[in-house]
Amino acid sequence: MAKEVTTLEENYSQWYNDLVLKAGLAENSAVRGCMVIKPYGYAIWEKIQAALDKMIKDTGHVNAYFPLFIPKSFFSREAQHVEGFAKECAVVTHHRLMNSPDGKGVVVDPSAKLEEELIVRPTSETIIWNTYKNWIKSYRDLPVLCNQWANVVRWEMRTRLFLRTSEFLWQEGHTAHATQVEAIEETKRMVYVYERFLREWMGIPVIVGSKTPSERFAGALDTLCIEAMMKDGKALQAGTSHFLGQNFAKAFDVQFATKDGGLDYVWATSWGVTTRLMGALIMTHSDNYGLLLPPKLAPIQTVLVPIYKGEEELSQMLERLQTLKKELEAKGITVKIDDRDNVRSGFKFAEWELKGVPVRLALGPRDLQNNTIELARRDTMVKQIVPQAGIADCIEQLLPQIQQNIYQKALDFREKNTFAVDSYDEFKQRIEDGGFFLCHWDGTAETEEKIKEETKATIRCIPLDAPQETGKCMVTGRPSAQRVVLARAY
Amino acid sequence: MAKEVTTLEENYSQWYNDLVLKAGLAENSAVRGCMVIKPYGYAIWEKIQAALDKMIKDTGHVNAYFPLFIPKSFFSREAQHVEGFAKECAVVTHHRLMNSPDGKGVVVDPSAKLEEELIVRPTSETIIWNTYKNWIKSYRDLPVLCNQWANVVRWEMRTRLFLRTSEFLWQEGHTAHATQVEAIEETKRMVYVYERFLREWMGIPVIVGSKTPSERFAGALDTLCIEAMMKDGKALQAGTSHFLGQNFAKAFDVQFATKDGGLDYVWATSWGVTTRLMGALIMTHSDNYGLLLPPKLAPIQTVLVPIYKGEEELSQMLERLQTLKKELEAKGITVKIDDRDNVRSGFKFAEWELKGVPVRLALGPRDLQNNTIELARRDTMVKQIVPQAGIADCIEQLLPQIQQNIYQKALDFREKNTFAVDSYDEFKQRIEDGGFFLCHWDGTAETEEKIKEETKATIRCIPLDAPQETGKCMVTGRPSAQRVVLARAY
Repeated sequence: MAKEVTTLEENYSQWYNDLVLKAGLAENSAVRGCMVIKPYGYAIWEKIQAALDKMIKDTGHVNAYFPLFIPKSFFSREAQHVEGFAKECAVVTHHRLMNSPDGKGVVVDPSAKLEEELIVRPTSETIIWNTYKNWIKSYRDLPVLCNQWANVVRWEMRTRLFLRTSEFLWQEGHTAHATQVEAIEETKRMVYVYERFLREWMGIPVIVGSKTPSERFAGALDTLCIEAMMKDGKALQAGTSHFLGQNFAKAFDVQFATKDGGLDYVWATSWGVTTRLMGALIMTHSDNYGLLLPPKLAPIQTVLVPIYKGEEELSQMLERLQTLKKELEAKGITVKIDDRDNVRSGFKFAEWELKGVPVRLALGPRDLQNNTIELARRDTMVKQIVPQAGIADCIEQLLPQIQQNIYQKALDFREKNTFAVDSYDEFKQRIEDGGFFLCHWDGTAETEEKIKEETKATIRCIPLDAPQETGKCMVTGRPSAQRVVLARAY
Repeated sequence: MAKEVTTLEENYSQWYNDLVLKAGLAENSAVRGCMVIKPYGYAIWEKIQAALDKMIKDTGHVNAYFPLFIPKSFFSREAQHVEGFAKECAVVTHHRLMNSPDGKGVVVDPSAKLEEELIVRPTSETIIWNTYKNWIKSYRDLPVLCNQWANVVRWEMRTRLFLRTSEFLWQEGHTAHATQVEAIEETKRMVYVYERFLREWMGIPVIVGSKTPSERFAGALDTLCIEAMMKDGKALQAGTSHFLGQNFAKAFDVQFATKDGGLDYVWATSWGVTTRLMGALIMTHSDNYGLLLPPKLAPIQTVLVPIYKGEEELSQMLERLQTLKKELEAKGITVKIDDRDNVRSGFKFAEWELKGVPVRLALGPRDLQNNTIELARRDTMVKQIVPQAGIADCIEQLLPQIQQNIYQKALDFREKNTFAVDSYDEFKQRIEDGGFFLCHWDGTAETEEKIKEETKATIRCIPLDAPQETGKCMVTGRPSAQRVVLARAY
């Protein structure tokens, strides 16, 4: 168990927080609810960004950048949107400070009040659709397939690093289409891009589904989502993709000349994932030793640690390690040599385990003689002595195995903790232990609300790829077309 | 001349604005002073980011992310900093909106007033040094070499796309060092990273120098900068690197245990470039045909245009062009086939010239027969018929030539428009025609201010690499150690 990290069993929430802090991923800032993403955490986010950005571009999208601020009046344009958003948000009312009359510090200059308040974007549909109005005149201008990487702000009362912060980073795609069919296809395409990204890069299996009407994005006709299971059996919504119909086009009057000479409102989608993915990554794979990073997202894939006595031995070892480093780097593997002279190797081992580096190589005096090296896998915590010759090939083959293994472990964990339950009493009892529950639901908001109130569990989604098994609602006994996924959630 | 673009000679300022809009780089938004960076413009910015980010990392820096908001009181901590910054800025005073009592739209909830106002970062020294306080305890924690890519806001009264906007994108490096010498070295290292980046990637020659004390960054002991000459002979400050001494460490009480057991304040630097670089790029290379992008930053390096009559010819041509495209892409060249059927090829030619694509290949019916193709260089506007065989090799060799050529043209232009002048009367006359002036200055703020008032020119910098030629101040006749660079500026 890593030093100063609470165990998962002891206090899950504290364990999570300890990991984020001790592994150097992020910390709270002087500004309530806003975090500092530290270099090690940000390096992981950069890898997430790079890989997902490529997938977004490979599906035909381009990046752009829209303003941070949104005029207050824009939020009133789309009736449902204003209900769901723009309440808890950062409001800019003035544009100048001045020296305080008492000579101490600065105060807001009352004469610099804005005519209309500006809202720091909580999401950008309104400002973007106001822009699209000028971009879209004809069917030839469609589709518009834009994405932006940006910061957004939603004033949160209770915040947790990565999971819920007032400011967070995300990408938001905003697309405009000539037909409903195309927009619905796009909504699905992107939720499956997310599904694939989490599976292939983050090692996280997710369930793809539709939100119930009451859980939809404000202004959407349909919200698709991906739901992942965390180590405590709770669900985490890791990404959403919204079919917005013509709501925003109507609110911002975006019409286009159709191919056959008519005039129609444009069809819209929006979709996004956030720095919350960092929380999902941590809570899917980590353990009491600390983080466990999927090799594809690890800023350091292999750490090399010399175990030495005295200066001379160290310099011999560093020479050897430098050679090995070059061999590994030639294979595209990222490597760090931990040559610190002020901490013991045991301390180093624990630190790199805490930071989730997938592979550790330790070179001791005997290894130096025998041309061997100790290889430790972070995922299995298994160590073995291997020859130095061919170590680069060995690790090149090992990293994808680790990537696959941690995905499989996460999938096994989810399957082990997913239960088909038909009795509401049984559900109420078993939900206390966590997990995903596949249950029949009568499709009404009343039943959904009753479950939520009585059990704190929510319908996470109506899965897209599940069998259409009919049954009876576990609460009301009324007919149900398929099982839905219920869980307590982050 | 590109359609609907004012000529450079006719109205330089309008020419610039037309280019930005017509080439699809950026546009004004509904929010005063904030721009929308459109996909084509953002694609260039992404290439700038990627290349510069690599150079920043190669010099040992790591990326991180710090909060968007800064508590108002932080600005008062560093006395000079508050004078220079935090005056014209966006002030967040409330964190909630509510439905308007009259039922129309939303209003600010007066009960949700923040205890302390938050400022949208105009620059991040204060919040970052408040964070570094917790990161730095010992000399072993130094240096800290962080960079962040972020948006910042400085409320501007008169804005121009890319050159001066209320919100802009930038990178800001913030480093902490154990010694003054190291911090000064870092300040220089980074200004030369910028110099090299502009030269090698953007094709822009710059002069590296120190700002005069009155032009320094608020809180800096020294500000180094790079100055570029625009097509109208005006200067544009394209990047700055500040030696901050111990000012911020003292303001935020960041002390460290030194190697020899003492306690000392940390030495600081900060350095940044912004989306203003896009303005520099446009105004260095463009002409009356439109943009001219350096191949290394062009989102599309080669455009392929079929010149055809009828469906059958088109499909034959597209087949051929697809083959050529694959050959080019295999060389890492980015290619677009313009297969639009609703505009003529002449229109296409003008549009790609406007968008600054370095190379155009046009395939006509005769070319199809002869296995030739027309190659047009955007930098020289020279066209020639070349064989299709080996076209990929040809363009692979041509692109670096174009890159070099546009740099050389920019350098020649600057040299042609740089003048050593020793008489203030001559200076006052000739400054009207633009250009850089190398003049002797007595080193006083009074003389600097007098020149500025009388000529609207400023001392752009005291060049670092210029000969130490002594002389007499052109205004006062007092002794001067070296010539400084004077110009009117953006």
